[in-house]
Amino acid sequence: MTMKIYFAGSIRGGRNDKELYLQLIQHLANYGNVLTEHVGDGNLTEFGEEGPSDDWIYNRDMCWVRESDVVIAEVSTPSLGVGYEIGRAEDTNKRILCLYRDQQNKRLSAMISGNPNVKIARYETLEDAVNHIDNFFKSLK
Amino acid sequence: MTMKIYFAGSIRGGRNDKELYLQLIQHLANYGNVLTEHVGDGNLTEFGEEGPSDDWIYNRDMCWVRESDVVIAEVSTPSLGVGYEIGRAEDTNKRILCLYRDQQNKRLSAMISGNPNVKIARYETLEDAVNHIDNFFKSLK
Repeated sequence: MTMKIYFAGSIRGGRNDKELYLQLIQHLANYGNVLTEHVGDGNLTEFGEEGPSDDWIYNRDMCWVRESDVVIAEVSTPSLGVGYEIGRAEDTNKRILCLYRDQQNKRLSAMISGNPNVKIARYETLEDAVNHIDNFFKSLK
Repeated sequence: MTMKIYFAGSIRGGRNDKELYLQLIQHLANYGNVLTEHVGDGNLTEFGEEGPSDDWIYNRDMCWVRESDVVIAEVSTPSLGVGYEIGRAEDTNKRILCLYRDQQNKRLSAMISGNPNVKIARYETLEDAVNHIDNFFKSLK
């Protein structure tokens, strides 16, 4: 059966990393069906999706979290939604990988970096991040 | 018995609202014991607490979430930790109030504003926020 992957990245918290999200999603597609492909959409701004109400987005995303097999979160941009999704995914015992790019004068939240229930992967380049993803999927077998 | 209050505000996500957090915490103290008083500490920077490890901070904060009676989150600054804490608090059926100040060119995450399990209070002034807090505690009775 095809694996279902929930990719979490910042939308309303800021879209500085949107190209990177797209590249990560493209790589994740080698491993299964990425439910949240829109997170890498270059046209999606920090105002969020146009059209659906927030209630609808919330329900869709929570369904996707529940039905996903794994959660991959890019956590370099602080985001309420990404933090929330990690918290909810943890409560359903999903395997969770958090990718973090070290940045000057910034530190990753202790709720992520001190959390024993998520795997943290620190990276510098896209190639590093892709290697971390490959190792994560190998570890699931 | 004294009520235990978990106040959540951004630390490593950015400290622009730290004075506001302090004022909210001072008001919350009228209703019980605020476990997370350090969130309003003016000396606490976006590098976080000095001394304790992230593992230790994580464990302390998760204990506090579990033992708290209510969670009050100020969600105007995007923060992984605040989002995470809301997600975890929800799984233990806490009553949750999220205070949000509308800002130009910003929108609150759909994981919060579309979430039926939290009460959202939009405010402009500290006085508004204080009124929302008073109404929230009245609604608990």
